[in-house]
Amino acid sequence: MVRAEIITIGDEILYGQILDTNTQWISLELDKLGIKTVRKSSVGDQKLEILQILNEAAQRADVVFITGGLGPTKDDLTKKILAEYFDCELEMHPVALQDVTEFFAKRGRELSDINRDQALLPIKAEFVRNAQGTAPGMWFNEKGVIWVSMPGVPYEMKNIMESEVLPRLVTHFKTPVIFHKVIKTVGIGESYLSELIESWELQLPAHIKLAYLPSIGIVKLRLTAVGDDLALLKSEVDAELAKVSPLIQSYIYGYEKDELAEVVGRLLVDRKATLAVAESCTGGHLAHQFTQNPGSSAYFVGGILSYANQVKIDQLGVSASIIEKNGAVSEECIQAMAIGVQKRLGTTYALATSGIAGPDGGSEEKPVGTVWIALAHENGVITRKLTLGGTRMQNIYLSSLACVNLLRRYLLNDLT
Amino acid sequence: MVRAEIITIGDEILYGQILDTNTQWISLELDKLGIKTVRKSSVGDQKLEILQILNEAAQRADVVFITGGLGPTKDDLTKKILAEYFDCELEMHPVALQDVTEFFAKRGRELSDINRDQALLPIKAEFVRNAQGTAPGMWFNEKGVIWVSMPGVPYEMKNIMESEVLPRLVTHFKTPVIFHKVIKTVGIGESYLSELIESWELQLPAHIKLAYLPSIGIVKLRLTAVGDDLALLKSEVDAELAKVSPLIQSYIYGYEKDELAEVVGRLLVDRKATLAVAESCTGGHLAHQFTQNPGSSAYFVGGILSYANQVKIDQLGVSASIIEKNGAVSEECIQAMAIGVQKRLGTTYALATSGIAGPDGGSEEKPVGTVWIALAHENGVITRKLTLGGTRMQNIYLSSLACVNLLRRYLLNDLT
Repeated sequence: MVRAEIITIGDEILYGQILDTNTQWISLELDKLGIKTVRKSSVGDQKLEILQILNEAAQRADVVFITGGLGPTKDDLTKKILAEYFDCELEMHPVALQDVTEFFAKRGRELSDINRDQALLPIKAEFVRNAQGTAPGMWFNEKGVIWVSMPGVPYEMKNIMESEVLPRLVTHFKTPVIFHKVIKTVGIGESYLSELIESWELQLPAHIKLAYLPSIGIVKLRLTAVGDDLALLKSEVDAELAKVSPLIQSYIYGYEKDELAEVVGRLLVDRKATLAVAESCTGGHLAHQFTQNPGSSAYFVGGILSYANQVKIDQLGVSASIIEKNGAVSEECIQAMAIGVQKRLGTTYALATSGIAGPDGGSEEKPVGTVWIALAHENGVITRKLTLGGTRMQNIYLSSLACVNLLRRYLLNDLT
Repeated sequence: MVRAEIITIGDEILYGQILDTNTQWISLELDKLGIKTVRKSSVGDQKLEILQILNEAAQRADVVFITGGLGPTKDDLTKKILAEYFDCELEMHPVALQDVTEFFAKRGRELSDINRDQALLPIKAEFVRNAQGTAPGMWFNEKGVIWVSMPGVPYEMKNIMESEVLPRLVTHFKTPVIFHKVIKTVGIGESYLSELIESWELQLPAHIKLAYLPSIGIVKLRLTAVGDDLALLKSEVDAELAKVSPLIQSYIYGYEKDELAEVVGRLLVDRKATLAVAESCTGGHLAHQFTQNPGSSAYFVGGILSYANQVKIDQLGVSASIIEKNGAVSEECIQAMAIGVQKRLGTTYALATSGIAGPDGGSEEKPVGTVWIALAHENGVITRKLTLGGTRMQNIYLSSLACVNLLRRYLLNDLT
């Protein structure tokens, strides 16, 4: 198995001023190719520290990824140190120079000497195009190891990896054929999920592995098949998918890069249906789940944020007596909120939330985390009571997620 | 200067299934104590890899922080390997056993053998209480190095660091007295900011350092003073603050852990004023900036999300002719939206957004990133046109930020 090491260079990451997300992204991409990450390290902008980690990595890994330290300022040492480490000179690279010249010309800015020098590369480096920035990537085959140096700006690094580096790795290391499938689930915890699919998991063939990737409210299942025939692997994974899906059908909202609210948005567009929201405790967060996605205006009409009770009464038509008698966090109120916004905005569907997100405002009868949600549909209203136990932000997030999922299951005719 | 090394142990982080946020947090805390992080590393759940990194760290650092690998399952190797590395036995620790017993009793769960074994500690370890979980922390003084081992669960690790480890580090290493002050700015980029304060920065005394911590829309300035007299350092930093503040007064929204929307919320509460929003392109995100904070119901009344033009007309009272003539992304429309929601919800102030967040929907006249924002106040409406160039999510975020900042500067009588 090919062994990889990932190194970030820079004081900002070492001292914690910036959170490093590059190494996680790179290791996930390598994992998909069957390349095993064996070490991740961060060092500062110090020549001796950088030389030391290069020496160490050369002994452990077949391929080393280095991000950072390629900027135009004198803090940025990576290029010079790589030239020294591989015992070669820096030379102006004609294609790199053309790229950086065009980069500045396009933006109507003058090319300074300092930026021109970004096209200087160690002569042992193969040029790796950076289509989105001024510091080119580099590929070295030295000391029996492949070295890939890239800028630390995440979108530049990702673009270089996807367009240039990952394809070269496949060719160079003749990595095994790997096929991945990610199943995305909502509304069920990792341990319950694993109980439901235990017998299926046990019968998986040795060359198909299962990984659980949990985050708050969402669990992803990743199937990884390793072999030498892609078409065969795909059909094998599809066959496993056909076996496991019925066991957890209600929880699966999508595959690969599907996002829950986007999936629900597509269902609404397919049905030529529209959506409105009436939000109390989620305070705009539920609407944002939809509106953050491009194209949401095709189905998302708008909403009423009724934080104050008077807004529930005036703008949603909730009767004052309901709030007086049952409180705003009640089944009666959430029904009236959902129906109210559906009617006033004239939409096919409406989602509503009212609850106690915390940290204050709870009572013995209605503790923090008590949230009512509702879906008004063509023929009535469905309500659910949630009992959450997280922080304010987690309670808001999970309430929004539960709403979106309630609509998903309604649209799929899958409510129990 | 005390040199620190931070190590995470675990396949999940190494293979990228989990994003490591612990090492960033630890290095920021160490920086505050004047302890310099010299290396961060991740290794997997492999005995040889763990022993190797321990050996390396012992040669580089005065103190080594290890997170992860302390769970009850057989994948978790840290404790056993530390015992082996320090050549000692594991022994049941009476206080640790009492803690874990109480932990389960409180939750009405039975203490299994596997959980009981979490109280087994290497006899050379000093017990470090974990008040929020079942795996205790450990402190070793071996091989001329301080070793701190903690569980990888972020809130358990942070609690252990804050309540137990950081105070011990101060005592053990007799770290210098350090005083920090963070100034938070909005509405100005890092390079413009640095131009405005350049002459002040150059005259800073050698024992007071300045760091720029930029994130999208926000730049934090951190002053760090090192010495041996806390009261003196505080007064010196305050004196520097008094010099720099007038240079950038309009951009400073707070200090330390202040959040922009919270600061504005406090200004509103002080004035007994209330707020509503009318959101088009921000689609709930602006309201969420306020409602994510505890106590926001003291001033945040609600809002109208008018994604569709018909909602702008029906729920906000924008005249159809304005939209027909000027479009929804126009000064005339944003004025009507802000006034409309202020009137209908009866608030002191109202903020409104209407723009083209992208990636589609732009035109030559109104490209993606064109956003109008408005503030309706006691005596009229203020409008601003933004020209943003980011992704959809960045455009939404920066539009919300600009709205909140517009209100902040209005409330401080600081609009130019």
